[in-house]
Amino acid sequence: MANTSTPDSSRRSERSRRAIFDAALALVGEVGYDKLTIEGIASRAGVGKQTIYRWWPSKAAVLLDAFTATVDDYDTKGLPDTGDLAADLKFVLRATADEFNDPAFQAPYRALAAAGANDEELSRTFVARLSEPGTRLYVDRLRAAQETGEVGADIDVRIAAEMLLSPFSQRWLMRTGELTYDFVDTLVDQVLRGLRPRG
Amino acid sequence: MANTSTPDSSRRSERSRRAIFDAALALVGEVGYDKLTIEGIASRAGVGKQTIYRWWPSKAAVLLDAFTATVDDYDTKGLPDTGDLAADLKFVLRATADEFNDPAFQAPYRALAAAGANDEELSRTFVARLSEPGTRLYVDRLRAAQETGEVGADIDVRIAAEMLLSPFSQRWLMRTGELTYDFVDTLVDQVLRGLRPRG
Repeated sequence: MANTSTPDSSRRSERSRRAIFDAALALVGEVGYDKLTIEGIASRAGVGKQTIYRWWPSKAAVLLDAFTATVDDYDTKGLPDTGDLAADLKFVLRATADEFNDPAFQAPYRALAAAGANDEELSRTFVARLSEPGTRLYVDRLRAAQETGEVGADIDVRIAAEMLLSPFSQRWLMRTGELTYDFVDTLVDQVLRGLRPRG
Repeated sequence: MANTSTPDSSRRSERSRRAIFDAALALVGEVGYDKLTIEGIASRAGVGKQTIYRWWPSKAAVLLDAFTATVDDYDTKGLPDTGDLAADLKFVLRATADEFNDPAFQAPYRALAAAGANDEELSRTFVARLSEPGTRLYVDRLRAAQETGEVGADIDVRIAAEMLLSPFSQRWLMRTGELTYDFVDTLVDQVLRGLRPRG
């Protein structure tokens, strides 16, 4: 059935969408992915179950959209490019550390990562929708630096992006270390030191 | 009660220990951490439940010992040190890639990683017993290279070890890329390029 949308109904839709995303993120952090249900999300969001099913086929789909909505900002603008690669990377990674250190962000992200470690299909969707677009922003920024000569032409920029991002993600996910500004700055400096054109 | 051990009974104990480890690793891969039980391990290993409880207080303790038994080899010998840091790191990481690409290894490790993402105490034990000792081997090898002048004196060798190991672990855990020899070699070369003393 066609949905005849008026300005009012689309404002209502947008409000429901946000309520559903907030409810899904809060709940998955509280009960874990396995025990998350569409009923639970609907009840927490104060909407009918059918409202959710009209827009999303599964709880995984709701969650992926909820997470994507939180990172869309980066996606559209790309990483900052002031011409100073080290400063730009430190700026973004320090902001990301603040975000990852926020308990409200931690719980749902951990629940999804845990579910993904066992569920291959969920994990592949999760990576394609969330982690790959993020990685690509770094790859693009490094490629731009390659064009200006700040990064060597022979560098594999995909692996360089992983050298920056994986130690960061791993510390957080496995709780092997703190995400401090000191860590971020040393990591960026040590990675970039290896990417410079050979003298 | 004191356990009077004879050569025969300690051979029997060692056989039971191995059977219990094999059963625990196989089962956690099949049913996941949450559904793993001491009863299930005992039945698969062909031993009485009490045999397991005599040696280990919990399923987590059995699993951690089972995993540790598979990595003890490295722990006692350290990483190879032929004086060629790049060659040594590529050798060990290629062998580790073979291991991580083995389905028999994958399933139990993923199950434990998934459980650890949500269970902070399990995760901290897991990291302290398994991942930290592994990381320390790399830190030690890099420090040795620092002493011979192959690695700069101003390098943070802990973060350097993470630059090597985290992209590797992350590709595997999140399935973001293949663990090929090409990947390993490029990663080692690109990391080491940044660690050399400044000219």
